[in-house]
Formats: sequence, C-alpha cells, structure tokens
Amino acid sequence: MAKNFTTREENYSQWYNDIVKHAQLAENSSVRGSMVIKPYGYAIWENMQKVLDQMFKDTGHENAYFPLFIPKSFFSKEAAHVEGFAKECAVVTHYRLKNSEEGIVVDPDAKLDEELIVRPTSETIIWDTYKKWVQSYRDLPILVNQWANVVRWEMRTRLFLRTSEFLWQEGHTAHATEKEAIAEAQQMLEVYADFAEQWMAVPVLKGTKSPNERFAGALDTYCIEAMMQDGKALQAGTSHFLGQNFAKAFDVKYLSKENKQEYVWATSWGVSTRLIGALIMAHSDDHGLVLPPKLAPIQVVIVPIYRKQEQLDEITEKVQGTIKALRAKGISVKFDARDTHKPGFKFAEYEYKGVPVRLGVGPRDLENGTVEVARRDTLTKEVMDMEGIELKIEALLAEIQENLFIKAKDFREENSRKVDSWDEFSVEIEKGGFLYAHWDGSPETEQKIKDETKATIRTIPLDGDEEEGKCIFTGNPSSKRVVFARSY
Amino acid sequence: MAKNFTTREENYSQWYNDIVKHAQLAENSSVRGSMVIKPYGYAIWENMQKVLDQMFKDTGHENAYFPLFIPKSFFSKEAAHVEGFAKECAVVTHYRLKNSEEGIVVDPDAKLDEELIVRPTSETIIWDTYKKWVQSYRDLPILVNQWANVVRWEMRTRLFLRTSEFLWQEGHTAHATEKEAIAEAQQMLEVYADFAEQWMAVPVLKGTKSPNERFAGALDTYCIEAMMQDGKALQAGTSHFLGQNFAKAFDVKYLSKENKQEYVWATSWGVSTRLIGALIMAHSDDHGLVLPPKLAPIQVVIVPIYRKQEQLDEITEKVQGTIKALRAKGISVKFDARDTHKPGFKFAEYEYKGVPVRLGVGPRDLENGTVEVARRDTLTKEVMDMEGIELKIEALLAEIQENLFIKAKDFREENSRKVDSWDEFSVEIEKGGFLYAHWDGSPETEQKIKDETKATIRTIPLDGDEEEGKCIFTGNPSSKRVVFARSY
Repeated sequence: MAKNFTTREENYSQWYNDIVKHAQLAENSSVRGSMVIKPYGYAIWENMQKVLDQMFKDTGHENAYFPLFIPKSFFSKEAAHVEGFAKECAVVTHYRLKNSEEGIVVDPDAKLDEELIVRPTSETIIWDTYKKWVQSYRDLPILVNQWANVVRWEMRTRLFLRTSEFLWQEGHTAHATEKEAIAEAQQMLEVYADFAEQWMAVPVLKGTKSPNERFAGALDTYCIEAMMQDGKALQAGTSHFLGQNFAKAFDVKYLSKENKQEYVWATSWGVSTRLIGALIMAHSDDHGLVLPPKLAPIQVVIVPIYRKQEQLDEITEKVQGTIKALRAKGISVKFDARDTHKPGFKFAEYEYKGVPVRLGVGPRDLENGTVEVARRDTLTKEVMDMEGIELKIEALLAEIQENLFIKAKDFREENSRKVDSWDEFSVEIEKGGFLYAHWDGSPETEQKIKDETKATIRTIPLDGDEEEGKCIFTGNPSSKRVVFARSY
Repeated sequence: MAKNFTTREENYSQWYNDIVKHAQLAENSSVRGSMVIKPYGYAIWENMQKVLDQMFKDTGHENAYFPLFIPKSFFSKEAAHVEGFAKECAVVTHYRLKNSEEGIVVDPDAKLDEELIVRPTSETIIWDTYKKWVQSYRDLPILVNQWANVVRWEMRTRLFLRTSEFLWQEGHTAHATEKEAIAEAQQMLEVYADFAEQWMAVPVLKGTKSPNERFAGALDTYCIEAMMQDGKALQAGTSHFLGQNFAKAFDVKYLSKENKQEYVWATSWGVSTRLIGALIMAHSDDHGLVLPPKLAPIQVVIVPIYRKQEQLDEITEKVQGTIKALRAKGISVKFDARDTHKPGFKFAEYEYKGVPVRLGVGPRDLENGTVEVARRDTLTKEVMDMEGIELKIEALLAEIQENLFIKAKDFREENSRKVDSWDEFSVEIEKGGFLYAHWDGSPETEQKIKDETKATIRTIPLDGDEEEGKCIFTGNPSSKRVVFARSY
C-alpha cells in the first residue's frame, strides 16, 4: 500500500499530506480552509480529549459552554486582543436568506445592527459573562474549560496544522490574586507537558514566549514546544497569564476579604486538533503513520490468513480467547475478517494507519499454537506462543510507547546545538533544529533575526541556566540562552 | 432557598425560568438568543453525551467532524431543505475587520465571493463529502455521527428549549438499500426512546410525523414525544428517513453488486441540549429541580452539621469510609465542608439543584452511628444506620429513578384521552394533554386545526391500533387515531 507514497527525504511536506490523506485522518472540504476530520482521525482526537478532560477535572476544573458569536464591540475593549485577531475573523452580518430571481440570496432586510464575530478565541465573551458571576472573593476562583470549535481566517492552510476552523479546548480561569493566577498558568503548562510526553510520546521544551510571540492580551505566555522530523518547531500548547487586562476591559471586580474592590486576575490555556499534526510529524516514517499505543484508536489488529471458509471459522474461534483477554486488559482490538480484501492488503493498510501491533494467524499457527506478532515502530516480526500472548502484548505496547518517546527525544538532542556568533547562526539555521543562542531581550532584534532567517524565538526555557553572554545579532549583553528555530 | 420562587400553579413559564437560573443550569448571554451553559447544566449534558455516545458506538457508529460553514449554493440543491432553513440562517459575508475613524469596522475589501451559512444542520455539507467517499457497495454503509453546535436564528428564544445556537449530535448514514435505511432510522428511534425512558426517566410516545411536521427534506420523520407538566408536548428526538433526496441533490451514486449505478439511501437523526429542558419540565417541582439519579452530576451530597471545628474534623473522618464505599459503587458523592455557609443553606441549595439523595451527619449521629437520609423526589427523610449505608443508597437511587419514571408516566396517562368530535376537541384542547383523535390524513385539515386551536399532530403512534373512525374536523374517513397537542 505504501509503495507509491512520497518519502520524507523526497518531499517532507508531501509526505505529511499523503499520510493525512491515505491514513484517512482528514481531508479538505468544499469550504475554503475548513477540514473534514474523518472517523479514524477523529478517534485520535477523542482519545486525546478523554485524557485531557480527566487531567483538567483532576486539577479542579469544570466544563461549561459559551456562545459561538461575539459582538464586534467586545473585541475593541482589549486593545492588543483586537489587534491580534481582527485580521482573521469570520463576520456574520445577516440572519436570513430569501428567494429572488437570481436564486437564493441574502435578505438585505435582515441585516444585523451589530455584526457578530465567529469566536477566534473566547476571552471577551467569557469575561463579559464572568462580570455577572463575580461579586466577592467567595466567588473565586472560577476554574472553567470549554471544548469548542473556533475560526481564524487563515490564508494558507494545512490539514490539522493550520485551518480556518479547528477544534480545541480553552480554559479560562479567574483568581483573587496575581500569585494564584500565575500558579494556575504554570500548572496547566505542566499538565500539557505531561500529556505531550506521557501520552503523545512527544518530548517538549517548557518555557515562556518572547513579547513578539505572546498571545494578544497576555502578560506572559507559557508554552510547550516540540521538534518535528524536519527540524522545525511546533508550538503544541500555550497557557497565558493575562494579568488584569480582561478584568479591566470588562470591569470585573471583586470585594476582597479586606472589603476592598479589586480587579480579578486571569489565565487562559488551550490545545487544539493541531496536536494531531504534531503526533503525525513526530513519529511517522516512510511506511506511513506511527501512533503511540496510548492514543491509538486500534492498539492491536488481528488479521486471519486463510484460503477456505473453514479455516477462517477455525481461526475466528481460536482467537476469541485472545481478544477477550486483551480487552480485559483495556486494550482495544480489531479482528479484521473482511472477505473483500486479501491479508497482504490488510497488512499494508494497518501498517500505513499506524496500528502499533499486528497479529497474523494462519492455519500453520493453529497447528503450532502460535501467532505472528509485528510491531509498527520497528517493523520487526516475531512468532510467539498464542497461550498467554496478552501479557506479552501488554508489555510490548508499553515498550513501543517508551521507544517512540526515546527516539523522538534522541532526534531532538541530535538536532539541538549552541551557537555563539551570527555567522554560525546563519549557517546552522539552514540545517534545521533548535539553536540555543544569546539574545539581548529586545523585540526589534528578534524581528530583525526573523526577517533575515525566518527563525523566531520558540521559547525561553524555564529550566535554562543563567549564563553571561552576548547577543548573537547585536553583541549586547544577555544572561540566558533562548531557543531559535523555524516553525510551523 | 426556594421560598421566593414561583410555583408551577402561579406561573408555569416563570417557574421554568427560575429553575434554569437558580439551579445554575444556564443563563442568557449578551449575544441575542445565545445561552451560556453553566458548569452544573453542562455536567448534565456531559452525562447525556457519555451515555448516548456509547449507545451510538454499540450500534456500529463512529464519530467524525464536518465544517461549521456551508456554502450558500449547497442549500439551494435540495428544494424542501432550503425552504425549511433559509428563514433562520446566520450568514457570514466578510472575513476581516479593520481600524477606521469610527473604531473597528468590517473591512469592505474582505467580502466573500460566496456567502457562508453557519450550519443549521449538516445534511448538505456531509452529502457533498460522502460523494467523495462512496464509489461502490463496498463503501456502504457509512455510519457516522457528529457532536456539534448549530445555529438557527430564532426570534423568540427560551433557555434550552429554543436558542439561536444549541449543542446537539447529528447522525448521518448512507446505505445501499431503502430497506436498510428505514431500518437504521427506526433503530435510532429505539435508541432515543431507550435513552429517554431508561436514563431520563421520561416516558415517550414513538411514532412518525405528519407531512406538515416533517423535517425539511425527509420522506419520513420518526420521533419521540414527551409530555411536560403543563400538558404540552415536547419533541425530544427525531430520526429521519431521507430517501434518495440528498444523494440526488449531491449526485452520490454507488456501483452495486449487479454492476449498476444506483443512488444512495440516507438517514439523519439528532437530539440536542433541548433534552435538558425536557428533563427539567418532566420531573421538577415547586421546590426546584428534580434530577433522575442516572444523569445527576452529584448523586449523593453529604452535609456535615457542626458548631465547632473539632466536630467537623470528627464528622469528616467518620464519613470517609462511606464516601469510599459509595464511589466504589460508581456513585458520585460530594462532601460539602464549606465553612462559608450554614447547613440549612446547603440543604436548601441541594434541594433546589435536584441532588437525588442528601445525607446529613451531626454530632448526635456520630454518637449513635446514624445518618439522616433525605430523598429529593418525595422530600422524605429517614434516620438510618451509617454501617452499610452504601447498599441502601444504591437501592434508593434505583428506586428514585424508577419512581420518577412511573410518576411521569402516570401523569401522561391521566392527561391523555380520546376525543371523537370537534366540539369535544375544542373544549379538551384547552385543558392540555394529549388528545387521541381521528384525522383524515390531509395537511390542509391539520393546518386548519392548528389555526383554530394552536394544536398540531405531535405523532402518529407506531403502536396505534387500526380503528375505523371519522376525522374530527372534516368527518372524512380515518383508519387510525393520531395524537394532537399544543407543544414547545
């Protein structure tokens, strides 16, 4: 199945598109920039949602739902925010169609007094709501998350990575103190990092964004940053400390224990279906998608190998015990007995779709009480005893999960290096990867570096050592290295 | 807490609004017709989603996601469909804002060539997609569902019952034969009826809609219809047999086993956040919300009764075993040790929020090894031994669930009656409830009855007996009684 597909070497970008298409994850729709997420791709998103939702609940958050539409005037209330989002908004101006001689047209009599923006993010509508919810310190904190669709009118789109509409979660919390809000933003960064590393098997750098890359309206943006196989960076999640910006814009105050009116402190944090793009690009190979077992919709597929119906019946009966034993361990299993396709076709299909473990069972296996176990990450095969196979598979899935993480981490280490001069930087940035370099802290310097090399500061690492140095671009003093890279 | 709230007798409509507001289920937003679903209301929706989603998967369906925006021209392709939805569409006409002297305005240079409709339902965009997915009979059936938000521009809105934006699921299936599609539509009706009766404890009539009440584009609409406490009907779920209408509109054909090109057969089916409105109006009383245990976010609340911190500590320690034992049974428990509110306030709060079982534990209970058990449905209290209380509570929750269903069913039976003449009908319809009457099968007759009485045919019952009779309005012959009522 994979034979006609592009390799990473040949054309990395096409390789990615091929996987999204042929592994049946998503496709472009007839609506410019909007994607259709197909069942197999959506099943990955559902697995992500399930885990993240539980992590949010375990840290005290509740889900709620706020309107899709935001009155235009709300955007104007926070200056940086409107600046950041105004250029990419879908605007609703009318609320009715009608028949005319030219067919169905927008009814000019049904024009809205105030235009509505399809939410690109929900800070404004949510803080307009929190105003009604908060009177005293007793009403705080508010720890709320929503799972929703958002729209940002992108001119150049790529499936999962950048689409006009995408799915995400957005947490919006309100706190009595600055300290508590910062702690919340940091806590959610840790939740995201745990999810990326423990579930997606994607190693991430934790850090903050430079002012140029900060969320529109935030005082500080915490982020997790991952490296893709082409050496480019992908921002996988962000958690913003918003200070009192939105509280001031929407006049949200609380009566403190000391009986004083104070503005409320805020955070917001989100991850999106973009994570599926990160998952694909972190692990997949020239044979197709590779999925970490913990998020794979199908963890184990069993393919019967047979010529006659009696053989299929015998195999079907034989594997029932294994299927049951695997499911009892919470492992998702598919037994593919379709008679419309040959085993070889099925092998190629599941390999391409990244199913972590494939079991092949044929007449000879029945005789010998064996099964052929193939693992997707290493593409190796081994014949094992069918008896007690569930224990070996359970261990194997854990091993694959770990192996993917180590492999991705090794790749990142191999492609991360320190650079100390502009000449070196200009050469190294062309090779891809993360460059740890000194920067003088000025937005102008970052912009100039971006203009010349297309590289930006992906993150200022939280665990970076203090180190005296000179900015690679200006030579001005710097106390810490930051991470430069080209990015998605 | 409930003392200042309106009773059903005084003002049924206000009673409903009070419950939605004061039980903190939802509120109106600053966006006309759009609601904010608050955490407690959203938790009910999450419970509904979890159960329904599993039911859909158990019947072979997968989830996917399709675009929010639909090109205007798609609507024109199915004549009845555009007729049904054109009058209530949110229309996106521009994709950018800009700064001007008057502030932030819509950028006239960013006008879309073709307007986009915010989906009121997704048949058109989905069938445009299915065209790419279907070539041969091997590609069928497609059994897909999506959880999504939709927008219908309603002029008069009520929280949960009718809002411009609401949350729902919409199943869209494609089949090789008419028989299979009808079987699917009927199967999903059964799923909805099971959910309503077994989980919501709301008895429903299963039937089909008359042509006037059919979905725009359907050949047949199956529905479940429930009775609210004011005697009005509420449509709680619909499942449509769409015939080949959308396949023809979007040219979706498949190559049959007999090597012939055939149009594909379709169904669609959905339930929405409206179910929360049904839940409220089916069970609640003048003391507030009453929730069926199987969908209650909090099934058991434990309220400590104490004066001194030592007493609270002692109670807290004592109830740990009970909390653990209840949770081991999958029962959700909240222990409310807030020191900001008195026990009396908490009792009233949980009563108003419809928590099925409340446990009160005070110093005397500690001495005696007892606990006060209050059930929300009957408002009765009983002192029981704390030892082994989890078994009694488990049984009690099942009893409350059943009791709510029986009560609602009895109410429906008491308010359902046969009527055989127009005079009788005109009098009885004013009293509310379901009227079983003969109808001559003509849409014009139904329309005239509606114009005179505001009553419509809610359903043509699937299990109704064949019975010769005369139409109450025209006297023309009829072979079966249908159900008339006023409705939400």
